[in-house]
Amino acid sequence: MHDRLRGVCAAVLTPFDEALAPDAAALIRHCRWLLAQGCDRLAVLGTTGEANSLSVDERIGLIEALALAGLPGSTLVPGTGCCAIPDTVRLTRSALAADAAAVLMLPPFYYKAVSDDGVFAAYAETIERVGDARLRILLYHFPQLSGVPIPVAVIERLRARYGAVIAGVKDSSGDLANMLSLLSAIPDLAVFSGADELLLPLLEGGGAGCITGLCNIAAPLAAEVFAAWHAGDGERAAKTQARLSALRQAVLAYPLIAALKAILADHSDSPIWQTLRPPLVAIDAARRGALASALDRLGYCLPAVH
Amino acid sequence: MHDRLRGVCAAVLTPFDEALAPDAAALIRHCRWLLAQGCDRLAVLGTTGEANSLSVDERIGLIEALALAGLPGSTLVPGTGCCAIPDTVRLTRSALAADAAAVLMLPPFYYKAVSDDGVFAAYAETIERVGDARLRILLYHFPQLSGVPIPVAVIERLRARYGAVIAGVKDSSGDLANMLSLLSAIPDLAVFSGADELLLPLLEGGGAGCITGLCNIAAPLAAEVFAAWHAGDGERAAKTQARLSALRQAVLAYPLIAALKAILADHSDSPIWQTLRPPLVAIDAARRGALASALDRLGYCLPAVH
Repeated sequence: MHDRLRGVCAAVLTPFDEALAPDAAALIRHCRWLLAQGCDRLAVLGTTGEANSLSVDERIGLIEALALAGLPGSTLVPGTGCCAIPDTVRLTRSALAADAAAVLMLPPFYYKAVSDDGVFAAYAETIERVGDARLRILLYHFPQLSGVPIPVAVIERLRARYGAVIAGVKDSSGDLANMLSLLSAIPDLAVFSGADELLLPLLEGGGAGCITGLCNIAAPLAAEVFAAWHAGDGERAAKTQARLSALRQAVLAYPLIAALKAILADHSDSPIWQTLRPPLVAIDAARRGALASALDRLGYCLPAVH
Repeated sequence: MHDRLRGVCAAVLTPFDEALAPDAAALIRHCRWLLAQGCDRLAVLGTTGEANSLSVDERIGLIEALALAGLPGSTLVPGTGCCAIPDTVRLTRSALAADAAAVLMLPPFYYKAVSDDGVFAAYAETIERVGDARLRILLYHFPQLSGVPIPVAVIERLRARYGAVIAGVKDSSGDLANMLSLLSAIPDLAVFSGADELLLPLLEGGGAGCITGLCNIAAPLAAEVFAAWHAGDGERAAKTQARLSALRQAVLAYPLIAALKAILADHSDSPIWQTLRPPLVAIDAARRGALASALDRLGYCLPAVH
């Protein structure tokens, strides 16, 4: 059993080589660097990790490589939610074999306008098939990308049926009211924001922390918001939150994953951060320069990247 | 090389057993029955076939079973488009091994708001990796479900680069104007409607035919529209089209795949049509009864199902 889920998690980017194959060694280096940067946990193979552009075998290969490299399972929260239940089950078992703290699980996301019963049935079937009491799930609510919201009522039904297996929710909707209504319905649910600007407001409302792509380049800021808030230093928390929010706003002027990779590439000697797997593509040199200038104006500083 | 792609294709339902496993034998029976009902081709493993709820291995198993059972490759148009390029490549190779007439290929559909360059790159990378001159693709434009439209400009770029490999488009947007602008840009493109009510208007505009879920229960009507139009009998074509459209409207009062399976279940002694894989769920008995009554009022009649 791992510690209660809370804190600052990076939604970890996945590096690809020039042939578009995932580079496990570079991912391991990046994960270690993120922990050194102040991340509590690593949400590998989620949206930011381009996981849905990887086959199940590629994803399992990366999870196994992370475990083999000695990344503690307690730091890992792999994304495992696919369109097809058998795929989600295989990936989730692989995460459990790596002793992961939890898994981040999208609902099946191809079919839209599915019923509450359908979303419930998909999660229930998956949990039953995995059949492992160690399983801890963060339900992944990201209607803008998945097209399949996870209604609060469904989460309550799942909690009633599966108890502690339903450990929390990553809410990437950007809708603080939804996060607060989750906490109001299920006070001990670990609710994480996928939007950095809501980290402090969510902590104030009883939330667990954040899981964000920006933590690939701004983990120290998020970690400081979290630490200051828990130390009761509301002023420092608010000041740091404002810096984090401004950074996010600057980055979100560009497609997020491409922008994050461009920033890492600008701070690294390795060419590994210049590749995305289609349908995502890198931002061009002009936009990359404009992004770097915008960050300079914010006084943004990143320690040298592996 | 197969005949030019045109005519009436069923977007074939996939039968599941009670353990939610696909039933290859029942699928083979259903495919043979659909050909006997007047379908020109069988778009197996598409949206209606719940293919995105199946693992790649399950899908390849079904394609191999169809080939092994002697279903002619010329009748097969398997769906092969996944979120991850390696999966799409594996499935497409499996379809080619079954000598399929073409494949129906969604763009990667998890990431939204992707650029034209990104959609182009995803198809280009897939085509290059498959590396087979026999490949014929129907691009699958279904923005309502995929969330990733395939703009006409991207289709023109793909046609310019890959020629006959880009054989056509299945347009499930329900937007006749988009289909006609495709034909205007690329007159020899095989454009299929995913919406039955647009079959005749699309044929009048130079289109190739339809690929629809309704053809699982109404192939004779669609085949009659197609035959009457090609025989120059516009009056019979229009009259039959009106019956087909009324039937579609009645069925679409319910979730389509569940409704189609309910109709087959009502005409079959086998329990095989009563199961959907989550996140889809069967419609309940009351709604199933109401649907049957609505079809009765339309004078709908289905021959006994296998």
